[in-house]
Parts: sequence; structure tokens; C-alpha cells
Amino acid sequence: MTQDTFVLILAGGAGTRFWPASRKDRPKQLLPLSGGDALIVETAERVLPLVGTWDRILVATGAHLVDATRAALPNIPAENFLVEPTPRNTAPCIGWAAAAIRRRDPNAVVVVLPSDHHIANPEGFRATLNDAVLSARTGAITTIGIRPSHPETGFGYIEVGAEGATSAALSVVRFVEKPDRASAEQFLASGRFLWNAGMFVFRVSAMLEAVRAHLPALAESLDALDAAAAKGTEWAALAELFPKMPSVSIDKGVIEHTKNLAVVPGDFGWSDVGSWHSAWELATKDEAGNTHLADGVYVDAAGNHVVDLRSKRGDGQVVALVGVRDLVIVQTDDALLVVPRERAQDVRRVVDALKARGRGDRI
Amino acid sequence: MTQDTFVLILAGGAGTRFWPASRKDRPKQLLPLSGGDALIVETAERVLPLVGTWDRILVATGAHLVDATRAALPNIPAENFLVEPTPRNTAPCIGWAAAAIRRRDPNAVVVVLPSDHHIANPEGFRATLNDAVLSARTGAITTIGIRPSHPETGFGYIEVGAEGATSAALSVVRFVEKPDRASAEQFLASGRFLWNAGMFVFRVSAMLEAVRAHLPALAESLDALDAAAAKGTEWAALAELFPKMPSVSIDKGVIEHTKNLAVVPGDFGWSDVGSWHSAWELATKDEAGNTHLADGVYVDAAGNHVVDLRSKRGDGQVVALVGVRDLVIVQTDDALLVVPRERAQDVRRVVDALKARGRGDRI
Repeated sequence: MTQDTFVLILAGGAGTRFWPASRKDRPKQLLPLSGGDALIVETAERVLPLVGTWDRILVATGAHLVDATRAALPNIPAENFLVEPTPRNTAPCIGWAAAAIRRRDPNAVVVVLPSDHHIANPEGFRATLNDAVLSARTGAITTIGIRPSHPETGFGYIEVGAEGATSAALSVVRFVEKPDRASAEQFLASGRFLWNAGMFVFRVSAMLEAVRAHLPALAESLDALDAAAAKGTEWAALAELFPKMPSVSIDKGVIEHTKNLAVVPGDFGWSDVGSWHSAWELATKDEAGNTHLADGVYVDAAGNHVVDLRSKRGDGQVVALVGVRDLVIVQTDDALLVVPRERAQDVRRVVDALKARGRGDRI
Repeated sequence: MTQDTFVLILAGGAGTRFWPASRKDRPKQLLPLSGGDALIVETAERVLPLVGTWDRILVATGAHLVDATRAALPNIPAENFLVEPTPRNTAPCIGWAAAAIRRRDPNAVVVVLPSDHHIANPEGFRATLNDAVLSARTGAITTIGIRPSHPETGFGYIEVGAEGATSAALSVVRFVEKPDRASAEQFLASGRFLWNAGMFVFRVSAMLEAVRAHLPALAESLDALDAAAAKGTEWAALAELFPKMPSVSIDKGVIEHTKNLAVVPGDFGWSDVGSWHSAWELATKDEAGNTHLADGVYVDAAGNHVVDLRSKRGDGQVVALVGVRDLVIVQTDDALLVVPRERAQDVRRVVDALKARGRGDRI
């Protein structure tokens, strides 16, 4: 527990890969996809021991999500919810958060985390974050790199170099976009590449200096916000300034141009919970690999992921699977999905089809 | 239309092959499995042109089914519903019906039909029944034999001989129980075997004489019923007599021992609608072989039978199938079933499992 450390949880987004559970106003982080609480609740509870108090956890989200997000995290003070007036990617939001936190503590270190990942080993995760905080205190913008387990083509990679400013940190050679299969296999074999999980840690001063160097327009807006905050008119200024800020990711807009970078490798059972298939992997299963419903009748069925998100769940509905393997079956109040686990990525196509039919009420 | 002809529809049973649609109090004939009306409604409407009036259609059913059955067939007079106090197989019920119809017309011919079959060509069906009525008027108990299309091992067969008493009728050599595969193939190749579809036509006098010859205990009970009917106490007598009648099928107990038999071959698109697979075969399908729901989204899906029997159907629930083939998916208010079409027969195992769990409320 460190008195200078804050956490910023990024909780925007509008995923389509978890349809019919995820919707415009109920994205992935608000769903209990790992079998426990909503992913964002698990995220916040996982870092609470690191910062020691809910007061030092901030949440950036969108106007359409703020009510549901606050309801999921009732212990976090209302003023810690940074509500983006319009989606402008991550740079404006993280810049705003850095400026706001600097007003509370000019020496603060901020841990930025996605809200919708799963981590099997929270203690290992916190140990890695502690190492990253130590690195950030030296001034380096420090990312967390996940040791890859397979040649994944769906993630970005970080190539690491020699040791960094602290014993646990390494230097960053370069960031690599999602690679093709051959490159991913090379990366894995080389031992020099880590997955970029979108987690980074920085001193507010280091981040705001980097913003001023690489996104000066954003830095000016943040100065104006600071001035407004001093007069007590921050929120009014935000509504005017935020939509004009450059819509760019913090990676592309700032981090990849920064010289003082570090990466701390981590291996703590990370999953980005990228599809219904991933959710099945995380779920508790019976000996045949089926996720369990109280009123499930499984006859010669194996490897199926059965999800009941109806408001009436627990009403004694019998779900009977006979002779089926490796299916994902999801029920909500207004939809039923059946898809093979290995085709789980294609759920996006349902959302596309519904959009084309003008069925915005179901996406 | 023939003034001496009556129809008796057999509508008992408690099928398990159409779970979760079929239940103890809602067996197969009460379900719209061919995509139109309930099978029993289609059965009655199909034979109405043969007898000319609803008054000459009788329905034998059980006490637990009579309300739903009468509701499905509101044009049939209440007194035409023969309600069996307890299930005693088909011989007592058909004997009772024959006796009751004889009291209305001693020369009556009765056409006995299952309530839960589908017939694609109703005109051809009625033409075959007319031929069978002509045969029955000569005194022969006349069955309908379906020309087999494949070596089915799930049906009984009738071996036919030379021509019978009328031009359309043939003599019956023997009845054969469900055969093994090799025998079924021989039967098909020989051209001398027809499927026994459980339809037969007889003069009431011929049937009651055959009952007296082969089931004398039943004949005595029917005499007692006749005597009670003459005094206006038939229903009280029935409650006492029926449970004591021999529990045997009309085939085993009477027809197979009878010498004066005939069979009329028929070919009118018959299906016993034996499973969800059969129901899919009968249903209207899109070009990919999926049955169609208004709010279905089918992405790379083919050959699926999707059935919505929820009381809220039409509520706009989206059913999305992605990358699945040849599945049966059935929703009711309290159950969801997913099974490959080719495993449809195994739905019985769900009912067995629910019974073993004491879930009588769902079977």
C-alpha cells in the first residue's frame, strides 16, 4: 500500500463480442463473465489492496454507462467517476485524469487498467504492479508486458531490451501492432516479446510532460481545465473542451513517442476475456466440461458453455442438452444465441445483421 | 360422404419424444407439430368430408386430456368424447366405441385413426379410406397399409396376399412386429409388405363379433354397458366396468386372431411425426433448410429446426444461430432443448433424467 498511488480504470467501450449479454448500455465490463462478479467489480477489488482506499480509485466512463457503472461500484466516491462527454479515445481521458490527480497530489503515481480483463492470480498481479510503481517513480512511463503463452495474432506486442531503471523493469525497444502468424511465432520463439495488455503506470508529471511534448493541443486543453478547476468550473469547461480534444489513443499519441519508457514483465494468469470461448475457459465446469446450471440436464453433452442472464434466472427453467458438444448457449430476456465455441468471434456478425435490419433495440 | 360411416380418433397417450413441448397433460396430438394446427385438429378436419358432419366423429381420450382435447375440437359434440376412466390400451376403448356406435346405427362402419399423424395428401387419404369403407361393408376388418419408402425398423409391417373382397383390398397374410434391419430390407425388396399405421375400418357388428370370439371377457363387459345404456346409467357402469376390462391392444387381442381381414394399400404422404426430426421434415424451411422465425438471425447456419412455443412468442425475442447445423432448438415457458436432429430420439432420456430427479413438474 503506497500513499502516492492512484488507480484509473478505463470503463468505456461498447463490445459486440458478448452479444446478447453485452449491449450498447451494458458493455463487457459490466457482465459477470468469469463466473463471479462483473469484471469491473473484480478489477476494482483486485487493486484495492494496492491503494488502500476506494478514494484513490478513479473510473473513466461514458455518459451512457455512468449510472450502471456507479451502481456496480458503490464504494467509489461519485467525484472519482470521470464521465467523458463524448468518446475521444484514451489520450484525452488519461490526460484529464492525470491533470485531475495532479491537483490532489503533484507526486502521484497512476496505474491505468482496463476494466474488462480477468486475472487468475491477483497477488502476483499486485506484485507486478508494485514493481511497475517503483519503476514509474523514477519517471519512466512503465507498461506491464504479459509473458506470451502462444503465438497470438490478436494482441499487440512489446519488444524488450536491457534492464531498466529498477531491477524488475526492462527497457522498451518498440511496440508492435497485431502481427501476422509467422511474426507472432518468431516473437514467441525469440523470448524478447511480451503482450501489450493496455496497462501502464506513470507519475502524473511524467505523463503530462509527455503529453505536452507529443500532443501540445491536448496539453493546452488540460491547462484550461486546470484553470477552470481553480475557479470551480471544471465540469462546464470540460463539456466545452473535451469534444475538441484530439481523438487518439494514449499509445499512438504519446507513449510510442516517449523515450523514457520501461516495461515490467508479468505472469499472473491474465486473460482479456475476448470472446464467449474465453469466458468458457474461465468458468467452473463439470467433469464433461459443461458449465453448470442448477436445472441443467446434460445427456451425452460435453464442453458446452451455458449462460443464463435472464432476469428470471432461477425460475426453474430446465435447460436440456442432448448429444451436443462445444456449443455456447446464451439466454437473455430478449435473445437466445447458439454458436459453436470455436466460432464465438463470429457473434459480431449477428450484431451487424441486427444493425442492418434496424434492430437497434437488440444491440 | 357416406351416411353409415363414423370416425373414431384415438387421442390418449403421453409422449416423451416431443419434450419439452409435449407433457403429461399436453401430448403430441395437441401440438402444432406440422407447422399448422394441432395434429388432432388436422386429423379431424381431414376426415370431416368423409363423414359429412362433426356429429359422426368420436374422440377417445383420457380424463387428464379431455378438457384440452374438447377445447381443440369445439365442433364435436360433448357426448362424442369417450373418456376412459383409466388407460386400458386400445381393445376396451375400441370395443366400447363400437358398442356405443352400434346403438346409434347397427349397420355403422367405423374408421379408427390415430390422432397424431401427418398426411400430406388429404384427398388421396380420403380416397384410400373410401376403399377401406367399401371393403369393411363386406364384413372384413380392413386395415390401411402404407407403401414403405425405406427399410424402417420402427414400424410394424403387414404382409399382403391375393386380392380381397373388393378391388382395392388385398388379403392379409400376417402382421409382423418391428423388424430388425435385415428383415426390413427384405420386406422392402419383396414388395409384399406394407407399414401398419394403426388405421382400420370395420362394421360395428364385425368388430363386436370378433371381440366376442377372441376377448369374451371384454364382450361381457360391453353387454353390461349396453344394458346400462338402455337404463340411462352407462357412465356409472363404465366407471365400474372399464378398469376391469382386459388391458390389451386391439391388434394383439382381436385383429391378429381374426380370419376375415383385408388391407387397402395407401400412398398419401403419411408421417407418424415420430420425433423432432420428423417435425423438421414437415416444416416450411428457408433455402438453407432452417425453419423460420420472424426474429431469427441465421449466420452460416443450416438445417436447424427452431421451435418457439413460449406463451410470449412474438415478443421480439431474437434467436441467433451462428455456424450451427442440423440442430433442434425448442423453447417453452419453462424449458430449453438443444439436440442434433439425428439424436432427436434421445429426448426421451431427458424425460427419464427429470423423472429420476423428481422433476415431475417439467415432464
